[in-house]
Amino acid sequence: MNQTKILLDESEIPTHWYNVVADMPNPPEAVLGPDGNPVTPDALAAIFPESLIMQEVSTERWIEIPEAVREIYQLWRPSPLYRAHRLEAALGTPAKIYYKYEGVSPAGSHKPNTAVAQAYYNKQAGIKKLSTETGAGQWGSSLSLVGKMFGIEVLVYMVKVSYHQKPFRRSMMHTWGANVIASPSDTTQAGRSILEKDPDSPGSLGIAISEAVEVAASSPDTNYALGSVLNHVLLHQTVIGLEAKKQFEKVGDYPDVILAPCGGGSNFGGVAFPFLADKAAGKEVRLVAVEPTSCPTLTRGHYAYDFGDSIGMTPLLKMYTLGHDFVPPGIHAGGLRYHGDSALVSQLYHEGLIEAVAVPQVGTFEAGVQFAQSEGIIPAPESNHAIKAAIDEALKCKASGESKTIFFNLSGHGHFDMASYDKYFSGELEDYDYPQEAIDAALHNLPKV
Amino acid sequence: MNQTKILLDESEIPTHWYNVVADMPNPPEAVLGPDGNPVTPDALAAIFPESLIMQEVSTERWIEIPEAVREIYQLWRPSPLYRAHRLEAALGTPAKIYYKYEGVSPAGSHKPNTAVAQAYYNKQAGIKKLSTETGAGQWGSSLSLVGKMFGIEVLVYMVKVSYHQKPFRRSMMHTWGANVIASPSDTTQAGRSILEKDPDSPGSLGIAISEAVEVAASSPDTNYALGSVLNHVLLHQTVIGLEAKKQFEKVGDYPDVILAPCGGGSNFGGVAFPFLADKAAGKEVRLVAVEPTSCPTLTRGHYAYDFGDSIGMTPLLKMYTLGHDFVPPGIHAGGLRYHGDSALVSQLYHEGLIEAVAVPQVGTFEAGVQFAQSEGIIPAPESNHAIKAAIDEALKCKASGESKTIFFNLSGHGHFDMASYDKYFSGELEDYDYPQEAIDAALHNLPKV
Repeated sequence: MNQTKILLDESEIPTHWYNVVADMPNPPEAVLGPDGNPVTPDALAAIFPESLIMQEVSTERWIEIPEAVREIYQLWRPSPLYRAHRLEAALGTPAKIYYKYEGVSPAGSHKPNTAVAQAYYNKQAGIKKLSTETGAGQWGSSLSLVGKMFGIEVLVYMVKVSYHQKPFRRSMMHTWGANVIASPSDTTQAGRSILEKDPDSPGSLGIAISEAVEVAASSPDTNYALGSVLNHVLLHQTVIGLEAKKQFEKVGDYPDVILAPCGGGSNFGGVAFPFLADKAAGKEVRLVAVEPTSCPTLTRGHYAYDFGDSIGMTPLLKMYTLGHDFVPPGIHAGGLRYHGDSALVSQLYHEGLIEAVAVPQVGTFEAGVQFAQSEGIIPAPESNHAIKAAIDEALKCKASGESKTIFFNLSGHGHFDMASYDKYFSGELEDYDYPQEAIDAALHNLPKV
Repeated sequence: MNQTKILLDESEIPTHWYNVVADMPNPPEAVLGPDGNPVTPDALAAIFPESLIMQEVSTERWIEIPEAVREIYQLWRPSPLYRAHRLEAALGTPAKIYYKYEGVSPAGSHKPNTAVAQAYYNKQAGIKKLSTETGAGQWGSSLSLVGKMFGIEVLVYMVKVSYHQKPFRRSMMHTWGANVIASPSDTTQAGRSILEKDPDSPGSLGIAISEAVEVAASSPDTNYALGSVLNHVLLHQTVIGLEAKKQFEKVGDYPDVILAPCGGGSNFGGVAFPFLADKAAGKEVRLVAVEPTSCPTLTRGHYAYDFGDSIGMTPLLKMYTLGHDFVPPGIHAGGLRYHGDSALVSQLYHEGLIEAVAVPQVGTFEAGVQFAQSEGIIPAPESNHAIKAAIDEALKCKASGESKTIFFNLSGHGHFDMASYDKYFSGELEDYDYPQEAIDAALHNLPKV
């Protein structure tokens, strides 16, 4: 029988994260403060522990994974690499399709890979409480999962409309012992000021970030945790790609093209960066970030300095952006509705080392259903973007007769996203091309630096 | 670092199922028809393929697993055996706790183990369509998952109240391409007759069975599939226990006590029967079926001939029963709300080879939350019964200072059961002791044979 899953032993969990900065042709662009000058590491010390700030600016190629972090990784890692025999057959393609399945984590996605690390370093720094925001709930769940394991209290500001629409993500966080507050709330200045103006505000990720950061900044034993975008978050996610490399070695194969959904960039960076090291050493491999046509940050955005949040509280990052005042359309891949992108992913894209492609929403669900019916797993809407792009590549191979090796990251399952599948089946989902006027307008709203 | 997961290669998936009948001290009690005479295999041929009927009555110890079935098993099997280091530490017990995690299947429980096999044999027999019933949705999902893989149409009669209360289980079935009908429906005589009397009937598992069986019995290319109770279903589930035995060998350990939830019996039989073979050969091992105090079939029921369904359509099985007209209280472990039990499990219990214990609902959720907060995975309410019993055993070890090896089957995750956790946290869950009067009354309502 054909091998379906390529497994690693726990002893093969990587001992070090890979820092792509060491292999970038140019050093990362500086992060700027409101005055236009580079931000110093200690400006971040009010909300992040020193060890994570050091990782944020590190240029070392390898950063050791603490044993306590690897011990918790063992609860679900190494994650399996699948050969998608059944999908290949359904497509009738000569291509070989592989996927790494991160939905095996208790929270159901790759997000806990960094949550564990962030909780660990905060615990080491004597932090008693972590605050964060969550939209659809993947990140809030992941931090909640690990908080209890390190004896750290977790406070999640959940966008109010999601709080009511996705009650079961909230239940998960409760089950793991976290405190979940609908945002905007009356527990912060930021929340109260919004509620004063609009008592029925549905909330937004930007507001929730403001609330979480305010709580962290105003209490010495509370820090803030972020689930994507930042360098240290992408660093922690490289366990995915590092494991995948070992797994490809075991079967004597190597990907021609690697695909991953790209919102803030931690999913894509996590799986692709370790292969970029090979590319830097001369190996041929295409690395493709997949984004929604409704939020085409890399494919149609501006490469410029912009705020990381939507209300302009954070330092300025040089990144592809649709403008920090971008209002994301209500697409169902909540994890991909971000106006900007990781600075590292952005710079590598700008320098031509990685590619990007945008795919329409309805097509992603069509691909997800085809995947579920052949491979079994029902994917998260974010993951459907990678599947759509992988199927497109496989069909190109079918047309050309090429037997390429296609690899994508199946970042999570869709167990908490079935309402989106219902909408797909009932024909209520729509494609949405982000309008050119809005992209042009964003250019004029970017902060001046 | 301590080993957390004991994994097997795909090449170690068992090649044969284990048939406990070969090691029972007495042959199984006959299945009786309405006339009180033993049912002949061909009486079942209208709704089951011959190969499954032969398995139902087989006395062979080992039955080969077809390669096509093992190929699909590879999508999630072998399932991991976990050592619960973190739970042990949380309890402060000298006991070693292990659990086998069946939630890795795409449908989220052990049920697909038999769904694959049943779909395969029906396909071999030229069957185009399978009909079945589902309550909470675990079994309907599992059959839906595999139907498409074998090119068999799947028709699920879902109890109407669940159809509306658990829309996301229904969405899963749709995603896998199944046709889901709220029962009672106007598609069958049985459904129409119920609707005539009560147009607002919320449905019941009994009614849904009647509809599914009627469709299968009245169409030559349609068969019926059942998710528990029958011998061939328990047979297919023995892959769980067989894998676990290999996994214990790998770490040089062996369980002193094995615990599994017991509703219809396929979960318990699947994990426990392969160890019963060792017990028959003189090995000391306790096998404990765990049931709810609200549905105490083994611990308080009658050992007698009774119908398998609630309206008296099926042949008579000798089993522990609370009476086929038992009305299950609305507890949240839907998979454990069955009036009877597998005939094999019943007979082994009657002969003293296995034990049974009943646990109260609130305590099972308390145990499930403690498990989630230490091990990460949020368990299904059914699985919480085994966890509760395992924690009780571990605390006994703590009191006595014994370092026993406790093993339980974590049969599924709770991703579609978060509403039950919400009820637990809000204090709305109740314990329910099934009343003695009802148990006494059942004795008088048993069919006369």
